[in-house]
Amino acid sequence: MIQSVDRAIRILAVLQGARRLSLSEVAGRLELPPSTVHGILKTLQAHGMVVQDRDSNRYQLGPAVLKLGNVYLDTLELRSRAVTWSEELARRSGHAVRTGVLTFDEVVIIHHEPRPDGSRQMPEVGIVIPAHASALGKALLAFLPEQATGLMAGDKLRSMTSETLVDPSVLRAQLAEVAREALATEREEAVLGEAGIAAPIFDASGAAVGAIGIVLPAADWPPAESTFTAVREAARNISRELGSPRWPA
Amino acid sequence: MIQSVDRAIRILAVLQGARRLSLSEVAGRLELPPSTVHGILKTLQAHGMVVQDRDSNRYQLGPAVLKLGNVYLDTLELRSRAVTWSEELARRSGHAVRTGVLTFDEVVIIHHEPRPDGSRQMPEVGIVIPAHASALGKALLAFLPEQATGLMAGDKLRSMTSETLVDPSVLRAQLAEVAREALATEREEAVLGEAGIAAPIFDASGAAVGAIGIVLPAADWPPAESTFTAVREAARNISRELGSPRWPA
Repeated sequence: MIQSVDRAIRILAVLQGARRLSLSEVAGRLELPPSTVHGILKTLQAHGMVVQDRDSNRYQLGPAVLKLGNVYLDTLELRSRAVTWSEELARRSGHAVRTGVLTFDEVVIIHHEPRPDGSRQMPEVGIVIPAHASALGKALLAFLPEQATGLMAGDKLRSMTSETLVDPSVLRAQLAEVAREALATEREEAVLGEAGIAAPIFDASGAAVGAIGIVLPAADWPPAESTFTAVREAARNISRELGSPRWPA
Repeated sequence: MIQSVDRAIRILAVLQGARRLSLSEVAGRLELPPSTVHGILKTLQAHGMVVQDRDSNRYQLGPAVLKLGNVYLDTLELRSRAVTWSEELARRSGHAVRTGVLTFDEVVIIHHEPRPDGSRQMPEVGIVIPAHASALGKALLAFLPEQATGLMAGDKLRSMTSETLVDPSVLRAQLAEVAREALATEREEAVLGEAGIAAPIFDASGAAVGAIGIVLPAADWPPAESTFTAVREAARNISRELGSPRWPA
């Protein structure tokens, strides 16, 4: 671990959480001397990773991080495959479709196909959801035992609603079922009024690299059996296109 | 400048350009010892900024950069204001609408409102365009003399098409006109078959912080006078909402 690089990323994370901070606020949050933080901020600024407000001198994230994020999306074969099948799944199910990948204890949305009803919907690419509280996350964790174990150790199962699974043994039992069915569900565990169904996506090495699923109003639960089938077929089709030798159900 | 932080960002930039590289390839491109690069890559990896392919051991950008990019978008008051007025401008003009900010010599798209004809269009948020070859970039450069001078010094006016303005004196004259009109145009200077019209957006300090504009088929040039008016009104309305004391035309 290179200490100053580690600190630079922690500074970005602090700005990610708080958005606009003065030098002394950043230094205070990281418990580092302002002079140390200043040198790192200036280096990040020289590359456009952070920008400084002209008037207040406060720091915030800069446009270079957006460019990096966009290139990341372009590098993902998973995402280019998901685009096609998401459209099909949205059409078949009538619901919004999300594709996500796991990063530590969260799912990051890498593609979002809006509900096909022509209404205006907020774009969701780049948003994160706690993995244990989302169908996408559970679909992934069921096939990534190391990450699942890490998440269940310690006190990481944060409660989002009264329905969030915060008991490791309950979550463990549900993940075992998800692994058998290759299908995960979530009912108001992240957001009240919202439910989800997701299935895992495997790559050519047979590893779970993502998940695709739909978001539906909790009031519409349970959806028709054909909706579950449509989600699993989308995941299977993407996995096949990625060269996966494996479809676990 | 903190050397290892600078190197870390250069590593991200190398991965941004090349997508999947081995340790020795990254080290070779940066002319650094592999052991130095390895320590930085491992630190970036520990934070999800890069990930390593299981099979090939090659490195690529990781999901943490996407999360950062999304938070950057959320922090921009400019972007939340642009969302509303982009919809209006797309409706009035019948064309796709882009809002961008300047980062060094490039414009980064922070919002993209598709053409309102219901067709499927690639999302453009996060893409970059050389500033001198885009209407958005010219609208910004006309009000940022320091950046414009920097861009025209040296040999930075890269040719994208036969129409790109690569002669500093021609670009300088055009920027002076843009500053008078608060309206920039571009005809096949970045992409053959495509033209653009854009106007600058000012914040409460009176600084040019972004630009909004439309993209139209070059074959439709010139558009109706009302289209130019619509672009300027969108920029003026956003500037007003940001508290700008200034509207330069």
